[in-house]
Amino acid sequence: MNAVEVISKKRDGQKLSRDEISFFINSFLSGDIEDYQMSAFLMAVYFKGMDSDETAWLTDVMLNSGKMVSFAGAPNLYVDKHSSGGIGDKVSLILAPWVAACGARVPMLSGRGLGHTGGTLDKLESIPGFRTDLSLDEFARGVEKVGCVISGQTLEIAPADKMMYALRDVTATVESIPLICSSILSKKFAAGPHGLVFDIKCGSGAFMKTLDDAESLAGNLIEVCRAMSRKARAIITDMNQPLGYAAGNLLEVVEAIEALKGNFPPDLHTVTLELAIEMLLMSGIAEERGEAILLLEEKISDGSAYRKFVEMVDFQGGDLSIFDARGDFPVASQVRDFQAAADGYITGFETEGIGRLIVDMGGGRKTKDDKIDNLVGIIFRKKTGDPVKAGESVAVVHSNDSRMAKHAAERLQTYVKIGGVRVSPPQLIKKRVS
Amino acid sequence: MNAVEVISKKRDGQKLSRDEISFFINSFLSGDIEDYQMSAFLMAVYFKGMDSDETAWLTDVMLNSGKMVSFAGAPNLYVDKHSSGGIGDKVSLILAPWVAACGARVPMLSGRGLGHTGGTLDKLESIPGFRTDLSLDEFARGVEKVGCVISGQTLEIAPADKMMYALRDVTATVESIPLICSSILSKKFAAGPHGLVFDIKCGSGAFMKTLDDAESLAGNLIEVCRAMSRKARAIITDMNQPLGYAAGNLLEVVEAIEALKGNFPPDLHTVTLELAIEMLLMSGIAEERGEAILLLEEKISDGSAYRKFVEMVDFQGGDLSIFDARGDFPVASQVRDFQAAADGYITGFETEGIGRLIVDMGGGRKTKDDKIDNLVGIIFRKKTGDPVKAGESVAVVHSNDSRMAKHAAERLQTYVKIGGVRVSPPQLIKKRVS
Repeated sequence: MNAVEVISKKRDGQKLSRDEISFFINSFLSGDIEDYQMSAFLMAVYFKGMDSDETAWLTDVMLNSGKMVSFAGAPNLYVDKHSSGGIGDKVSLILAPWVAACGARVPMLSGRGLGHTGGTLDKLESIPGFRTDLSLDEFARGVEKVGCVISGQTLEIAPADKMMYALRDVTATVESIPLICSSILSKKFAAGPHGLVFDIKCGSGAFMKTLDDAESLAGNLIEVCRAMSRKARAIITDMNQPLGYAAGNLLEVVEAIEALKGNFPPDLHTVTLELAIEMLLMSGIAEERGEAILLLEEKISDGSAYRKFVEMVDFQGGDLSIFDARGDFPVASQVRDFQAAADGYITGFETEGIGRLIVDMGGGRKTKDDKIDNLVGIIFRKKTGDPVKAGESVAVVHSNDSRMAKHAAERLQTYVKIGGVRVSPPQLIKKRVS
Repeated sequence: MNAVEVISKKRDGQKLSRDEISFFINSFLSGDIEDYQMSAFLMAVYFKGMDSDETAWLTDVMLNSGKMVSFAGAPNLYVDKHSSGGIGDKVSLILAPWVAACGARVPMLSGRGLGHTGGTLDKLESIPGFRTDLSLDEFARGVEKVGCVISGQTLEIAPADKMMYALRDVTATVESIPLICSSILSKKFAAGPHGLVFDIKCGSGAFMKTLDDAESLAGNLIEVCRAMSRKARAIITDMNQPLGYAAGNLLEVVEAIEALKGNFPPDLHTVTLELAIEMLLMSGIAEERGEAILLLEEKISDGSAYRKFVEMVDFQGGDLSIFDARGDFPVASQVRDFQAAADGYITGFETEGIGRLIVDMGGGRKTKDDKIDNLVGIIFRKKTGDPVKAGESVAVVHSNDSRMAKHAAERLQTYVKIGGVRVSPPQLIKKRVS
């Protein structure tokens, strides 16, 4: 077996064996296969794909290239969620403590903002002191002690993924379903969950713009999990407008805390609840949907979901005191209203543009070294289908730069569509895939 | 413009501009684009191809990455031939001095054996003292003085091709028509010819096994030459059996010398004459085929083609004295007859197998550092369609290892097909492409 044979085989569209995939990745890690051979291989995979067996074998080799967490408790209890990314997606902050409060264990390794989308770690870091750089040992201890932890990928986890992703990024081989699946799953499974629920976002603010693309990614992720003998379900959810009202790191933490206290924006409630139900069913804590919903509602109303969040933040070194009294948290220096020019209805959002605008305002990174301004963001007051009156506030821009605040309010005129005819709000839960 | 954009564009099947190709190759040469980006690009080209414009631009950048010869004489006079490679293909050794004897100038940069095929330089190096490593200055001087030179690619010529070929070789991106075309043409045109005749071999001993593949390569080469404002014609010739009777470096030189003295094997005569006619027409030395044939036959019968060969060998430091009296040249220690087991007819050859057998015997290289045994080879006594009697000699194996000689004679039982029904000899000139 040699590198050229394996590349040729994939190039010619043949199915690789577990041994061939293992040989190729491990030789790459040991330096016996060069970067230029890996990049040719990645491009061949881009064109010829991999079936679920091959992707599972690839994931397994990548997973085994680093350390993995293993837990002592009943395996089914350990469940996690992965989102394909969107705008205003603060679901993880609510979901992890919520289902942990119900008795599940959520070992959640999360990521940072990517492109126009926000990142869970960036959001959590707007809580003073909150550590997202736990060692794997601290991480595992937190999961057992608190029931949930949300932290970042460490250097010990899936080094093969890190090396391959760095190459994909500079060789135009990022957009390949099997490579995306193996990258996601090798990191997710390293944290020790037995089952995964996928929130595949679909629409103008998502990476998957069409339902077909979203279904394809969902189907592939589930098949690969099955091939790895893990439980998996996916929900395809709407990302044609920001989720909830807030977009921007600190603003989203505020909204998440309010949600955990029972004050959910309706769409955020629907999406988070659906994912929570799936996690409880998967973990065996609930037998059916009705039971899961009752349990989940109880954990919000009795305050235990919020207390679990506080416990998690506390374990990870965070200080929630700035959020104690609503309205007391720090606010950006420039808060600028964007008002409707005429009567009408909200007909839609250019959601990706909104995500990019927040990045431009300093709320996300354009390069790896950019520092994020956590106070930056936008609070939307209207959702698709809502009526608006001339002069009424549609959104509020939070910025620390007056020129940028003005610029943002102008760009919102393009990104928030207002028309004379009322449209229906988009369907939030577009499809369940299992 | 950056590397990832160019790779993505080709990956998505779009046509690259001259500027994009020039940027990509030149940045690779300067080290600003890395090997792993080039290999991803090469794999994208493998899958998505390049049209004749793109291939011509690529060829031009590669050509201009190094030195080029330019001649003072009338441009049309400078013509060359490229063969796609086969077994027993000693055409260049005869063709170059033959058309030079007619007044054409043949600046021929040749290669070494590749895979199962022989190489012109390897053959010529079985002439004691023959130098294939002329500098470009020596090369150009030889072409002007003698009328023909056959030498190897120098380090000054098309360094982009050398670097790209080294990567293609280890990334499974060799078999790409636009990459093959640009590699061939950037080297060929660096030697200064204005026109090229292609001998595209087709059949069991060629890289192109089918007429479709051969036509595709021929068509592409011609289109790219046109896009570069050069003259080009192609002939697709049979490679379902070794060309001539001899296969093996020194044995082929002996056969070529005999041919230049007028003792041509019929098939070698047909193929070499066709190519010579095309070169004379292209150079304007002959107006039509009949005139070309008369001139060419005269140069064999009056001895001037052979004298031109002697002149070329002399210029390149070779000593032909061992070939002076036929039969006096050195012969391998083991000369073993392979005889027909029963009466019948030669029905065909596994020609690629024969090429690999000669490599195994030491007549070619398996790795770049292998030393070639020039005395090794096979003299065939029969061609497809010939009748044979039981016990009659079909081929004679020349080897310097008695075990290998025995092994070779055994393998020939598989490679030379003998059957009870007479078949027609293959058509030698399969197609002309212009």
